[in-house]
Amino acid sequence: MNIFWNELVKQTDPYVPGEQPSTTDCIKLNTNENPYPPSPEVTKAIFQELNGSLRLYPSPSAQPLRETIADYYGVNANEVFIGNGSDEVLAFAFMTFFERGKPILFPDITYSFYPVYTRLFRLEAKPIPLNEDFSIPVEQFFHSEGGVIFPNPNAPTGKFVPLEAIEEIVQHNPDQVVIVDEAYVDFGGSSAIKLIEKYEQLLVIQTMSKSRSLAGLRIGYAVGNRHLIEGLNRVKNSFNSYTVDRLAIAGAQASFQDEQYFQRTRTKIIRTRERVRKELKQLGFEVVDSLANFLFITHPKAQAKRLYEQLKTNGIYVRYFDKPRINNFLRVTIGTDEEMDTFLDKIKEFV
Amino acid sequence: MNIFWNELVKQTDPYVPGEQPSTTDCIKLNTNENPYPPSPEVTKAIFQELNGSLRLYPSPSAQPLRETIADYYGVNANEVFIGNGSDEVLAFAFMTFFERGKPILFPDITYSFYPVYTRLFRLEAKPIPLNEDFSIPVEQFFHSEGGVIFPNPNAPTGKFVPLEAIEEIVQHNPDQVVIVDEAYVDFGGSSAIKLIEKYEQLLVIQTMSKSRSLAGLRIGYAVGNRHLIEGLNRVKNSFNSYTVDRLAIAGAQASFQDEQYFQRTRTKIIRTRERVRKELKQLGFEVVDSLANFLFITHPKAQAKRLYEQLKTNGIYVRYFDKPRINNFLRVTIGTDEEMDTFLDKIKEFV
Repeated sequence: MNIFWNELVKQTDPYVPGEQPSTTDCIKLNTNENPYPPSPEVTKAIFQELNGSLRLYPSPSAQPLRETIADYYGVNANEVFIGNGSDEVLAFAFMTFFERGKPILFPDITYSFYPVYTRLFRLEAKPIPLNEDFSIPVEQFFHSEGGVIFPNPNAPTGKFVPLEAIEEIVQHNPDQVVIVDEAYVDFGGSSAIKLIEKYEQLLVIQTMSKSRSLAGLRIGYAVGNRHLIEGLNRVKNSFNSYTVDRLAIAGAQASFQDEQYFQRTRTKIIRTRERVRKELKQLGFEVVDSLANFLFITHPKAQAKRLYEQLKTNGIYVRYFDKPRINNFLRVTIGTDEEMDTFLDKIKEFV
Repeated sequence: MNIFWNELVKQTDPYVPGEQPSTTDCIKLNTNENPYPPSPEVTKAIFQELNGSLRLYPSPSAQPLRETIADYYGVNANEVFIGNGSDEVLAFAFMTFFERGKPILFPDITYSFYPVYTRLFRLEAKPIPLNEDFSIPVEQFFHSEGGVIFPNPNAPTGKFVPLEAIEEIVQHNPDQVVIVDEAYVDFGGSSAIKLIEKYEQLLVIQTMSKSRSLAGLRIGYAVGNRHLIEGLNRVKNSFNSYTVDRLAIAGAQASFQDEQYFQRTRTKIIRTRERVRKELKQLGFEVVDSLANFLFITHPKAQAKRLYEQLKTNGIYVRYFDKPRINNFLRVTIGTDEEMDTFLDKIKEFV
């Protein structure tokens, strides 16, 4: 607390990202990073851009990347917004579409940044309790006063809501923006991007940090009706003209151009996830039906917090959330097959 | 205007950065970029980092770079905050230190992003008219209700306020944060960073976009008392956990490690500026006493707007602001000697 902070800052309760251990001598299954490096085309493209013009500002809207992503999804460039990671895109979306005094709906168990944004921008939220099995009570998201946001698959559960349910939610919020945060959609879900031409109030947000192995490069994007995108641009241009640097733009473009690599690595992760799921079940774990690059697990006879600590002592980092309803669960990112074998070996010792 | 934007967004009037012409076949003197490339050490360091771990998130606080910058200025790492360009640092500073209903003081002629932030964060500002010669009326910045911010050297005039005047302003604002925005300080000014140990309310913001030729990489930073820095971190961590990517961190560190290159290029720009200043005066221009990498010029017999357009037609981009008091001025970035010769040749034709 400090006399120079304004009232808002005194009250903030910032998001706490998963630990970034300083040692590389560990197995890092705590921040949903991809265990495989990005496509070799990405490094090539960045290397080329390095010989270009770092001394010059990048395109304020990251226009070349907008066009690449638009082509990839078969939409127009003015239906794509690029940001410095999907967290920045989310922050701008909260600033653009949500209004004070009109509660936003999001699940009670969800990405923990949403309540942080709500406080930071002095908004109000009405958390909707998930069903007992962590599925989304679809009707509860109808007729929102201030808009809707949820991750699909949800975090940290990994549960996926089928597009039909999303369409129902969107249809029952004709005058409110519905944001689907698809950070993990490439690991088995189906993207709502295909619905944006049909619903002008639907905004889909994705990131290149997970399925495209570019957490270190900071790129996220939103796809939606051009008026929604224009709103995001107005806010971004009132905040920071250039949020995505030249190397990130070049690297991100190359990632979209290497479809084969993308398909190969994401399929590999899905396969590893299904194998680990089976083995964990054999060990007596309950494993939530995840379509993400992580599993959300609990054991009837083992304390999650203790497991988390035991694993950490053994150089294996997983994520534990000390929050109501989920404080006996662990979120485990899917690593390489080798990493998961070590994880499974250790966990066998502890349960 | 769109029904899905909130009231704030409907009222925003975003900052408009200088044009980024799509052709490279022009002379770009409009966004104060450096005409020289970054140090070769920067590209080497980025190349090395490329072989590292783009798949992993960067350090949330850009810790390695914090330490490099702290060493460079002889302060502690917890007195340094790193952001995605100094615009992002400025945005976070507005969010952290300024309070609604308490007017912020800044000059009437200044960086045009300040009024944009003021609106975006629903703050109030009291613009202080500069003296006739664009110098700062120091006493008018005393006893502010909500804090003070100004660039030093000022933009777009290039005028520098000596540190004694800054100290006076800081001393007369004991309970308010005073932000000195030193985007252009390396071109002949003297940094207020040396005063931060003495004044806990002083925050100094710098960028690597100008004097370090890294506009395309997006790095800015703030130096100040650790409580001010902690406030900035609280806001940043409520907005976007990782704002500076791995390649930017590595490249920026290398730039600080090549002091010789930095000194050589900034001296070159200062020398070119002084030569161009003389030649413009000989052509009848009034040239504001700039200590930045640009000159702010006006001609008693030529219309600035017309000159701007004539130059543009000839492939030379300078900046024209259609604003009260300065709408007969041009801001001309200092390019290479060759570029400035072409600029001078052309301008001779028009005046």
